[in-house]
Amino acid sequence: MTQPIKRIAVNTGGGDAPGLNAVIRAIVHAATKRGWEVFGIRDGYNGIFLPERYPNGDGVIPLTRARVRGITHLGGTIIGTTNRGNPFHYPMPQPDGTIKEVDRSGEIIEGFKKHGFDALIAIGGDGSLSMAHELAKRGNIRLIGVPKTIDNDLEGTVATFGFDSAVSFATEAIDRLHSTAESHHRVMVVEVMGRTAGWIALNAGVAGTADVVLIPEIPYDMNLVAEKINAREAAGRNFSIIVVAEGAIPKGGTTSVVEKEVGKAERFGGLGEKIAAQIQTMTQKETRCVVLGHLLRGGSPTAFDRLLSLRFGAAAVRALEEGQSGVVVVLNPPTVNYIPIDQVADRVRHVPVDCDTILTARDLGISFGD
Amino acid sequence: MTQPIKRIAVNTGGGDAPGLNAVIRAIVHAATKRGWEVFGIRDGYNGIFLPERYPNGDGVIPLTRARVRGITHLGGTIIGTTNRGNPFHYPMPQPDGTIKEVDRSGEIIEGFKKHGFDALIAIGGDGSLSMAHELAKRGNIRLIGVPKTIDNDLEGTVATFGFDSAVSFATEAIDRLHSTAESHHRVMVVEVMGRTAGWIALNAGVAGTADVVLIPEIPYDMNLVAEKINAREAAGRNFSIIVVAEGAIPKGGTTSVVEKEVGKAERFGGLGEKIAAQIQTMTQKETRCVVLGHLLRGGSPTAFDRLLSLRFGAAAVRALEEGQSGVVVVLNPPTVNYIPIDQVADRVRHVPVDCDTILTARDLGISFGD
Amino acid sequence: MTQPIKRIAVNTGGGDAPGLNAVIRAIVHAATKRGWEVFGIRDGYNGIFLPERYPNGDGVIPLTRARVRGITHLGGTIIGTTNRGNPFHYPMPQPDGTIKEVDRSGEIIEGFKKHGFDALIAIGGDGSLSMAHELAKRGNIRLIGVPKTIDNDLEGTVATFGFDSAVSFATEAIDRLHSTAESHHRVMVVEVMGRTAGWIALNAGVAGTADVVLIPEIPYDMNLVAEKINAREAAGRNFSIIVVAEGAIPKGGTTSVVEKEVGKAERFGGLGEKIAAQIQTMTQKETRCVVLGHLLRGGSPTAFDRLLSLRFGAAAVRALEEGQSGVVVVLNPPTVNYIPIDQVADRVRHVPVDCDTILTARDLGISFGD
Amino acid sequence: MTQPIKRIAVNTGGGDAPGLNAVIRAIVHAATKRGWEVFGIRDGYNGIFLPERYPNGDGVIPLTRARVRGITHLGGTIIGTTNRGNPFHYPMPQPDGTIKEVDRSGEIIEGFKKHGFDALIAIGGDGSLSMAHELAKRGNIRLIGVPKTIDNDLEGTVATFGFDSAVSFATEAIDRLHSTAESHHRVMVVEVMGRTAGWIALNAGVAGTADVVLIPEIPYDMNLVAEKINAREAAGRNFSIIVVAEGAIPKGGTTSVVEKEVGKAERFGGLGEKIAAQIQTMTQKETRCVVLGHLLRGGSPTAFDRLLSLRFGAAAVRALEEGQSGVVVVLNPPTVNYIPIDQVADRVRHVPVDCDTILTARDLGISFGD
Repeated sequence: MTQPIKRIAVNTGGGDAPGLNAVIRAIVHAATKRGWEVFGIRDGYNGIFLPERYPNGDGVIPLTRARVRGITHLGGTIIGTTNRGNPFHYPMPQPDGTIKEVDRSGEIIEGFKKHGFDALIAIGGDGSLSMAHELAKRGNIRLIGVPKTIDNDLEGTVATFGFDSAVSFATEAIDRLHSTAESHHRVMVVEVMGRTAGWIALNAGVAGTADVVLIPEIPYDMNLVAEKINAREAAGRNFSIIVVAEGAIPKGGTTSVVEKEVGKAERFGGLGEKIAAQIQTMTQKETRCVVLGHLLRGGSPTAFDRLLSLRFGAAAVRALEEGQSGVVVVLNPPTVNYIPIDQVADRVRHVPVDCDTILTARDLGISFGD
Repeated sequence: MTQPIKRIAVNTGGGDAPGLNAVIRAIVHAATKRGWEVFGIRDGYNGIFLPERYPNGDGVIPLTRARVRGITHLGGTIIGTTNRGNPFHYPMPQPDGTIKEVDRSGEIIEGFKKHGFDALIAIGGDGSLSMAHELAKRGNIRLIGVPKTIDNDLEGTVATFGFDSAVSFATEAIDRLHSTAESHHRVMVVEVMGRTAGWIALNAGVAGTADVVLIPEIPYDMNLVAEKINAREAAGRNFSIIVVAEGAIPKGGTTSVVEKEVGKAERFGGLGEKIAAQIQTMTQKETRCVVLGHLLRGGSPTAFDRLLSLRFGAAAVRALEEGQSGVVVVLNPPTVNYIPIDQVADRVRHVPVDCDTILTARDLGISFGD
Repeated sequence: MTQPIKRIAVNTGGGDAPGLNAVIRAIVHAATKRGWEVFGIRDGYNGIFLPERYPNGDGVIPLTRARVRGITHLGGTIIGTTNRGNPFHYPMPQPDGTIKEVDRSGEIIEGFKKHGFDALIAIGGDGSLSMAHELAKRGNIRLIGVPKTIDNDLEGTVATFGFDSAVSFATEAIDRLHSTAESHHRVMVVEVMGRTAGWIALNAGVAGTADVVLIPEIPYDMNLVAEKINAREAAGRNFSIIVVAEGAIPKGGTTSVVEKEVGKAERFGGLGEKIAAQIQTMTQKETRCVVLGHLLRGGSPTAFDRLLSLRFGAAAVRALEEGQSGVVVVLNPPTVNYIPIDQVADRVRHVPVDCDTILTARDLGISFGD
Repeated sequence: MTQPIKRIAVNTGGGDAPGLNAVIRAIVHAATKRGWEVFGIRDGYNGIFLPERYPNGDGVIPLTRARVRGITHLGGTIIGTTNRGNPFHYPMPQPDGTIKEVDRSGEIIEGFKKHGFDALIAIGGDGSLSMAHELAKRGNIRLIGVPKTIDNDLEGTVATFGFDSAVSFATEAIDRLHSTAESHHRVMVVEVMGRTAGWIALNAGVAGTADVVLIPEIPYDMNLVAEKINAREAAGRNFSIIVVAEGAIPKGGTTSVVEKEVGKAERFGGLGEKIAAQIQTMTQKETRCVVLGHLLRGGSPTAFDRLLSLRFGAAAVRALEEGQSGVVVVLNPPTVNYIPIDQVADRVRHVPVDCDTILTARDLGISFGD
């Protein structure tokens, strides 16, 4: 029989996404309603295994209802996050000046026992969920995952929070660039997030009525991109909007600009700038590039994302109450429920090249450069 | 064998919803790509059977790509709509001064033949779709329906366009009222659309962190509403936000204020004002009412609604191309496809009282007055 | 010689306006930079003379930098406000059951001395500033006023914070109603704040391209309003948008609906509804009314209002430092400086009927019903 | 005596700014009300002296009321603009392959006569207004200027349209970056427009509560910038927001990165990236750069800018009616009136380093790196 729950821990890992605070608030309300205490681990797992970084002893902080008041609409995460320093391969400087990767997961598990946590709700992406799953198995910790990816590329859930906010802002940005592109007869290239999946580029490109959309799932041919721009010009439409996912790959290419030149660090701007330069050369049209990058992560969640986040947070607590462990909450319309964590972790949901949104885009005359 | 399509008609019926123009644009692009011509019937079916209202002979207008340029983000509908004058029961003034309902559907069918339309794409709600279905059967007209309801209460589709826009605006309005309610220690009652289903009130109430949400599906007890407000007061929270669907029903009541006093005309403000007055009397707290009404229908669609509308419009054309008739396009995540029209028409999708959003709301401490 | 300042008090009076929190934040930063302590009096003056309402002894709260973090963009006021219970005429229930107005200003002055405040920064409208001025004279208190009126009707300053936010939201609301009015061929009446001055109605009406704008400064004739709607109809524009300031007065009328029927309580909806009914009768066109009321007060301040609020707050502190008293800070473009308080208090800045915005409106074909 | 006006021309020059279409609409309405005809010259002066680019003969288009319907809130300009190809120094390819600058102003003046224009309303910045002035003098053309600069750096007017929209968007962007900076403990550098004047950076930086603001008017020292970031870190604020005007200049520097490396072409991203790299090196903190660039120009004007644009447009027509020429309309609060064009052209309004907004920023703890 599972032990009754009294104290739970919450953490957020990986890049931030609009809605994280709403998830946290829902967890705190749903848990305290059941008489549980909730604690936030700061900055991924740092708060629990790197105590020296928290001189005030606040690496783990109590999350009360008062503490989560008025945060539903705030971007970011009140407990901090990190996408550096995997505790299973933690980079430790050695006496000889080199860096060695050390497994410090044991310290985290120890910290859990010391704090007397009965369970962990881990809010994170693909990588963070796998890590939490491993920790849970090793430490015999009850775990519920809340999937988080602004790219919407997780298997098992129809949507993740933050994605709608990112698409909304990207669409608004495309709207803005439309008016200036048209007035100046320019080509505007907009680079958005999307290393391996093109959901943001596709959805914002269609909603914002772009002319060309380049995504990792459909290798592009620059000649066809230029052809599209020239065809518009010939039809009297002397401006074009090109939306580019940062991880789009040219036909015949095997790796994206992001992987090759930019690496894993969260840097934007490689591909968009490159494509803008190519277009200017090929079409002789004035071409400009705008990189949305970090603007897509920040900001207040849309109403859709707020609601989804709150539902995810509350569902995670209900799953714990039902005695579940090793599951992640997912949106399976019209319901939020849960599935085993390994049906989600380490799986990327790509844009199917024959999905109806792609068909819609083609019907609207949008080119994928293919 | 079905005849090849050459000319199609489009119309929009019932109350407007953000996204109608995006649907129209997608239809025009997808159809012209297939070499078809598209015509818009103005103001429901008025443009085709009430020619006297269109002295310039423009009751039916050609919809070209140029005509639908730049309308994706515009609210309303460029071909107009109406929610008055059902052509099957058209109110005709008689010589003796009385009004008699007359079936004028034959004139519409005749008009269709005269214009040489091969098919109709009808964008409308429950009632409009039933009417189109009846016309199609009588006139042997090929028909694809595109479901439209801002209330999101249609069976068979996980979402309808316009709903996300309405929830977004309602949530923003609740945000605004929060700050003024808190500063003035007031109770604010916000009335939103929702005659028979409470989706807007529920989703905006949860996303906007209301304290009480009253919906048609859960009869409310004013004593419990007052109790919630007083409990907050006792806990030092001297303000409250109450979200009310216009069709909410008191416990023991059989009809809503809307049905009883307001009738079918699109008028808002009955229930919210009544509840505000009751709260002020029962709690002695300064209480104010805001009726969102028509503000929820207008305005630019959200990115989510733009995309859904475009997908719906393109899917309708593809369905026609595939030889379908008598179907409506629906969102069946992650895909937009179609189902027989009678699985949608005349069926209302209510909020299930045990759905996870209701559970989430209760976990967040929101009262439904029950 | 003026005594050096060590402790100052801040309060907010009257209806809330977007930007109040930004003013408070700027005061706290500018004052603590000078080594002063800042205290907030809650709910107008209630926190200081009605201690029984603050059982935790927190009627006066220290305002530190930590306390005002992250509030610049929040609507409302973190120290609360009130527009009831003038302390000079405070309504006190008598043993015989009647209510008698009592002057309790002495208790406030006493409270000031007890707390050792060296000065007061009073953020408030016309009435609140007069009251603060009187208190300052009686109690020999150093006083700086920060003008606050969402209606922008104060003399001596080109703008007050909150006004731009209100106009922005009203304009957005008019945009929304445009699309639905046009689709349904309706007349939409939008009622906005403005009891004695029509600034919000005028600016939002012009920015939102309304067809008729009714303001207190220009008495209207309903026949001319109906004529305008009919003229549009005749020109094929079968919808109209009417913006009404709540205090607009019919030609020959002496008092507005607000004064006559609604009284001084902050209630909206009298005039807009009345005019909508008249229009429907006179033009036979479907007419709807939307009352923006409290939606205009709440919500996040625009960037313009944030900046103006911060400038006002910092200028108030600088004025104190310079030894000023009995002045209010004002916007005198391009500078924020200060003028004697009696040049502002008890003076209403009406819309000049020949100002260039009125001329612009007339050039755009907008009717004032005159 | 001045001849009565019958036909006027309008053009827009230089970079686009939110509000251009509203100016055009007001001009058309005010002019047609007076019985005048209005024509738009496309793409600066191209439409009149480069007819070969307009094969349909539409280099000059009639602007009727129908043509300007619904454009008030649209970004861009319906008649196009250009910031290339000054007609006084027009780059002409020579037989020998070189490019020679040729004065083609005579062709424009000729075109004016041919079209029978009685006057020109030129909407443009510093450069465009000077050019129009010269044309007017040479061609004896009646001219009214409407000042346009998103940078708000024109002398003689308290504000220009587009500036408020740019500041609003920049402030929103800073808000977004705040949440992600805080969650990830990062430094975020935001580059905004502002080659010679820092108004956008200053206003958005203060409204968005940045920590450091670098503007051309105050040369910065990177050591002081790093010091500010480190001081925040020491105080437990482990993130910072730096707003950089593209034309900011380091102490001791004589030219900005923009001038030196980027040239006059409208390219962004030089300075922000450079400063981000320096900060990362100096503080060892993860630092990211976002370049807002073209996003600031596009998009719908704010209500403030819509109103200002409409007032400017109508005032230009009234000035013509009054017989004025060689003047520009300006905002001289609370009035829009006009001043001689040479009081505006070729003068830049810099941020005064002791203006109250700078003092406010310093009071709020914002560093200018000085």
